[in-house]
Amino acid sequence: LGSIFGSQFRFLTWGEAHGPAVGVVIEGCPAGLAFDEAFLKSELARDVPDTDIGTTRREPNKAEILSGVFEGITLGTPICIVIRNEDICSRRYEIIRTCPRPGHADYTYRARYSHVDWRGGSRASGRECICRVVAGAVAKMLLRPCGITVCSRITSLAGLPVATCADYEAAKKRVLEIGGTGDSSGGVIEVTAAGVPAGVGSPIFDKLDARLGLAMMSIGGVAAFEMGSGTAFAAMTGAEANDPFTMDGGAVRTTTNNCGGVQGGISNGMEIRFTITVKPTPSIAVPQQSVNLHTKEPVVLETQGRFDHNFTPRVLAVVEAMTAATLVDLLIEGGFIHPVRFEESRLPTARLSRNPIS
Amino acid sequence: LGSIFGSQFRFLTWGEAHGPAVGVVIEGCPAGLAFDEAFLKSELARDVPDTDIGTTRREPNKAEILSGVFEGITLGTPICIVIRNEDICSRRYEIIRTCPRPGHADYTYRARYSHVDWRGGSRASGRECICRVVAGAVAKMLLRPCGITVCSRITSLAGLPVATCADYEAAKKRVLEIGGTGDSSGGVIEVTAAGVPAGVGSPIFDKLDARLGLAMMSIGGVAAFEMGSGTAFAAMTGAEANDPFTMDGGAVRTTTNNCGGVQGGISNGMEIRFTITVKPTPSIAVPQQSVNLHTKEPVVLETQGRFDHNFTPRVLAVVEAMTAATLVDLLIEGGFIHPVRFEESRLPTARLSRNPIS
Amino acid sequence: LGSIFGSQFRFLTWGEAHGPAVGVVIEGCPAGLAFDEAFLKSELARDVPDTDIGTTRREPNKAEILSGVFEGITLGTPICIVIRNEDICSRRYEIIRTCPRPGHADYTYRARYSHVDWRGGSRASGRECICRVVAGAVAKMLLRPCGITVCSRITSLAGLPVATCADYEAAKKRVLEIGGTGDSSGGVIEVTAAGVPAGVGSPIFDKLDARLGLAMMSIGGVAAFEMGSGTAFAAMTGAEANDPFTMDGGAVRTTTNNCGGVQGGISNGMEIRFTITVKPTPSIAVPQQSVNLHTKEPVVLETQGRFDHNFTPRVLAVVEAMTAATLVDLLIEGGFIHPVRFEESRLPTARLSRNPIS
Amino acid sequence: LGSIFGSQFRFLTWGEAHGPAVGVVIEGCPAGLAFDEAFLKSELARDVPDTDIGTTRREPNKAEILSGVFEGITLGTPICIVIRNEDICSRRYEIIRTCPRPGHADYTYRARYSHVDWRGGSRASGRECICRVVAGAVAKMLLRPCGITVCSRITSLAGLPVATCADYEAAKKRVLEIGGTGDSSGGVIEVTAAGVPAGVGSPIFDKLDARLGLAMMSIGGVAAFEMGSGTAFAAMTGAEANDPFTMDGGAVRTTTNNCGGVQGGISNGMEIRFTITVKPTPSIAVPQQSVNLHTKEPVVLETQGRFDHNFTPRVLAVVEAMTAATLVDLLIEGGFIHPVRFEESRLPTARLSRNPIS
Repeated sequence: LGSIFGSQFRFLTWGEAHGPAVGVVIEGCPAGLAFDEAFLKSELARDVPDTDIGTTRREPNKAEILSGVFEGITLGTPICIVIRNEDICSRRYEIIRTCPRPGHADYTYRARYSHVDWRGGSRASGRECICRVVAGAVAKMLLRPCGITVCSRITSLAGLPVATCADYEAAKKRVLEIGGTGDSSGGVIEVTAAGVPAGVGSPIFDKLDARLGLAMMSIGGVAAFEMGSGTAFAAMTGAEANDPFTMDGGAVRTTTNNCGGVQGGISNGMEIRFTITVKPTPSIAVPQQSVNLHTKEPVVLETQGRFDHNFTPRVLAVVEAMTAATLVDLLIEGGFIHPVRFEESRLPTARLSRNPIS
Repeated sequence: LGSIFGSQFRFLTWGEAHGPAVGVVIEGCPAGLAFDEAFLKSELARDVPDTDIGTTRREPNKAEILSGVFEGITLGTPICIVIRNEDICSRRYEIIRTCPRPGHADYTYRARYSHVDWRGGSRASGRECICRVVAGAVAKMLLRPCGITVCSRITSLAGLPVATCADYEAAKKRVLEIGGTGDSSGGVIEVTAAGVPAGVGSPIFDKLDARLGLAMMSIGGVAAFEMGSGTAFAAMTGAEANDPFTMDGGAVRTTTNNCGGVQGGISNGMEIRFTITVKPTPSIAVPQQSVNLHTKEPVVLETQGRFDHNFTPRVLAVVEAMTAATLVDLLIEGGFIHPVRFEESRLPTARLSRNPIS
Repeated sequence: LGSIFGSQFRFLTWGEAHGPAVGVVIEGCPAGLAFDEAFLKSELARDVPDTDIGTTRREPNKAEILSGVFEGITLGTPICIVIRNEDICSRRYEIIRTCPRPGHADYTYRARYSHVDWRGGSRASGRECICRVVAGAVAKMLLRPCGITVCSRITSLAGLPVATCADYEAAKKRVLEIGGTGDSSGGVIEVTAAGVPAGVGSPIFDKLDARLGLAMMSIGGVAAFEMGSGTAFAAMTGAEANDPFTMDGGAVRTTTNNCGGVQGGISNGMEIRFTITVKPTPSIAVPQQSVNLHTKEPVVLETQGRFDHNFTPRVLAVVEAMTAATLVDLLIEGGFIHPVRFEESRLPTARLSRNPIS
Repeated sequence: LGSIFGSQFRFLTWGEAHGPAVGVVIEGCPAGLAFDEAFLKSELARDVPDTDIGTTRREPNKAEILSGVFEGITLGTPICIVIRNEDICSRRYEIIRTCPRPGHADYTYRARYSHVDWRGGSRASGRECICRVVAGAVAKMLLRPCGITVCSRITSLAGLPVATCADYEAAKKRVLEIGGTGDSSGGVIEVTAAGVPAGVGSPIFDKLDARLGLAMMSIGGVAAFEMGSGTAFAAMTGAEANDPFTMDGGAVRTTTNNCGGVQGGISNGMEIRFTITVKPTPSIAVPQQSVNLHTKEPVVLETQGRFDHNFTPRVLAVVEAMTAATLVDLLIEGGFIHPVRFEESRLPTARLSRNPIS
């Protein structure tokens, strides 16, 4: 199990990185949504936002829609979208058959399944993420008419803070320096969602922040999730941490937003805000210690080929996709979006007017 | 929805803080487990580990087992355990009927449900956590014969690092100082699980670390989840971050454990390790800005009564409970524990011998 | 697993027949519903509709509401209702410890769980059904403002057809005759639901008729489920079986209703209609062949005590409860009932006006 | 929702009858199973077992395996299998855009989704069933090493009983006679599963017979489900209906099998046996009354083309597939098959030796 995400709006990803294809089936997308193929293409194209520090695998990522859409409109039935794997070179992975790469899932997949597809990281590859981006694109198509937008930005790269364009150039330089030595680096991403009405999220175990935590931690290479002020809460007092309430144009708002827009697992109508930490790329050209699982002898792995120096930029599209999918799931769960027929006329389009108190 | 946790070993908590009772129903506990009532009692007693900084609510927390256990042995049927609410004083919560407390879920529950039980935080109260501790106690009963132990410790309190007993005394002094002003403070907890075999966790969306992230973020007042080295990964290089493999007594191990024992969402046989950040107690005696939801006028809330100065110590039992429940769920999912009959003779009792490669 | 029914409106039953209590937790009942305690009591009182052929166990069936209702209105949180077991005499079940009763689940529970509560049928007892009746009562409270009613009636008893009151008296006489010999008899029940709008039911695997089939077959002693004309379809031709469409007062209707109101798993706005077959009571005073599981010797069981001569009448309340719960589940799933807040003003109150075409 | 079947072994079908393709994704098939492609082909070829009374749509039904299998062995990851739709002629369905066919789901899909793919029955077509056959073939691959076989046979056709080959010829003649008038007929199928160990099935709501009922009633055109002696129980007495226990070669058995091998929802080690009723083909050449949904005028539909005179024979493969999938799901749920790695050496291979008592 494990390949299905979500409850009301749910999707199942399938496919090995070096198998014939990868794909996703989305279930629970209401009927009547205009399917924006151009937008789907643009989201798929985001897969490599910065070629300097990105991947060398250059696949067309051409998505074929096999079901669930008729005459450009969703049917409410499962949407299956397939992406063929075309730029495959499995030879360089031969060594993994016996020697697991540090920082990768080679060893743990073998521990779990015994029989594995050792080529290209299989399901644990970044390749699987393209399926999430597809599902996220559909989720964003649903969020747009609701007036909800999901944004992400890098706030730290290779250990350097990124607040301005100049910061980003400096950080990119550092990424390339480290990459030049065959090593890699990580980063930090902040995600925000604007326009989310108050009342989204189900108490106790399906809290909005808990579900976002699950969504983010399920992305390969994500090591930490911080809601709102996150780890900084540890050194704050209650008076500093609590977000005071105020009235603003007839609506209840908070004057600060330390909680990241979620209280008791339910959105309060403010901006949803959280942060994730991205590990350095595990594939590096630096020699690394491993073991040969057959001979039980130690080995030194020297991985050839070019890899992402830092995959933080590539993760942006995935992070947004998982955020959008989580929001749509809970918007349907909470009755904000009709589960079967997408009716724009019944959607909440302005956050203030949706405010349950004003 | 939202009140059910887990898939194979799942539990449902119910009950309002100031209603007649709270309780939990555990489904998926295999038959044949000796139910250790004394242990359950000792876990319930952990609810207030340090009276200096803890709560004043002193309930007996007497658990009544209504089903699922016969002659001291589990039946494999749902285990329902009820805890009556006895020390209830709802008057001081009257103000919440109209004025939501900053840092609490008063406003968001109202936004979601319209009709709410305004007394004592209802489901969003720490009272709900006692149900999790009960479920976690049963989970620990299952983990014990598997040779798996879950531990937690405070690593930071009120902004001060806690590594030694002296540190703890210093931090506690700071907690009391802050508490003396009517304000509150937070902390950091590290959790470890020893003895978890390699191969636990389901790839993609049910990754062990993702499920732990969900479990932790579902606890009220938890603001951040860090797996292994967590946020520190952002400034590490791949060579620093990757955990090299080595052979140790015929078993595969890693020489470092930055990943916290999980790679690609599956345990690697090393210690599971993660960290959570606990917010400062939202209930404070400091005057706070709020609004009257009926008159829409601003109000200043001055909460009376005594509260936890810092509820980090109280969270320990809950954090362990949710960790244990998550592990049992995935141990059953992965075939390590039989789903119907608990058979000690078929359990993996030593981590090394379970190593799938050696 | 197995003790949770439903998805959007779901309930979990727990409790052994001779344990301290049985109970149910309902999750997914929207907030804002006026909880009709008197109606709940009246449904519980239906447990023995005809004392002549019913059970001798006379428990008060007093339900205690422990959560989810505040000031007489549902909160949207889990509703836990407990019923204590009071009229317990376990001695007569001693024989079951070693010798399974034919027609009962004694042997199969032992096969599955090894450790069992042998007293009174445990979870396989009719006692568990009282929990279903409680959940069904809440479901009916939700259906009533929607203008949906669920009815059931006996159409055959002890092999005799029941269409009139005279039929029923004749059949009852036959039931008593058979019962007088220590033997038992079964029956047939027809269930109808009026007022269900067109469009309820999810295609493929969550078809309305499939979910009703699951619901009915999950009731102990139910041996067959027939949708609409059921087994009679086998000898019909397509022209006889198909229900022609017509317009009636601006609404689409069918001139016959062989399909029982469901086409392709989705309701068509006509009356929902299906039939179930109830087995004869397995507990009989006639000597029966069994085996002693310890000695592996054959034994003849001569069960003492009084039992229902025919439990078809007792099943009526359970059948309606499961039907109501299934309908509410799919009404929420289909967006007919708001999942979080019960808003009467937004409910479809007249079937014709809801017709999607007219 | 609605397109996912099962819990531990679950599959999702997708695709419209006249869209680009249909397909299935199977999740929860353990790793290590030798994937028998030849068997899959033979199961797909069963789609039209008797050309005399079968369909005229002659598609190759060529299945492409896109994931989850590597070097002929399952990986434990999702298995996606795609079948292209090639023999499509949608013109004859144009009339359905406005006039729903009696006995079909045209009207109800429109009631639910508003926007529909009107061509060829879309998801409600028999075409969807080919995906179930694929999933069932994989389930059968898992059952075979467990010594479990699923069989089905027609026991009635066009209202005539079928016990012998001569019966079948007579019934077929009747089918063709009815078909010759443009009308259609139905039938009855008996299904048996041999080799199922005692202890399979989860009490209360996931009873083996309840899950089989769900599985069968989810098949388009199935109108009734009877477990064991089914509707005949209504006229039996308890002494006739109860199956007495006996010892047979050290194993517990019953001397009759009225219950169809399931007691209290759990298998008792005897043959699983149930019966389903298949409706007459709804597509007939006889003129039928319908309405034009736009003009609201009555219309008479005269469907052209050739259709199955009786699709009972075609349903056999689907019925077996759903039975096999249900059994595998519950075998994993009950711990009889390892959920992650398929280990033949640990499988129960002889029913008697698995007997939990002997």
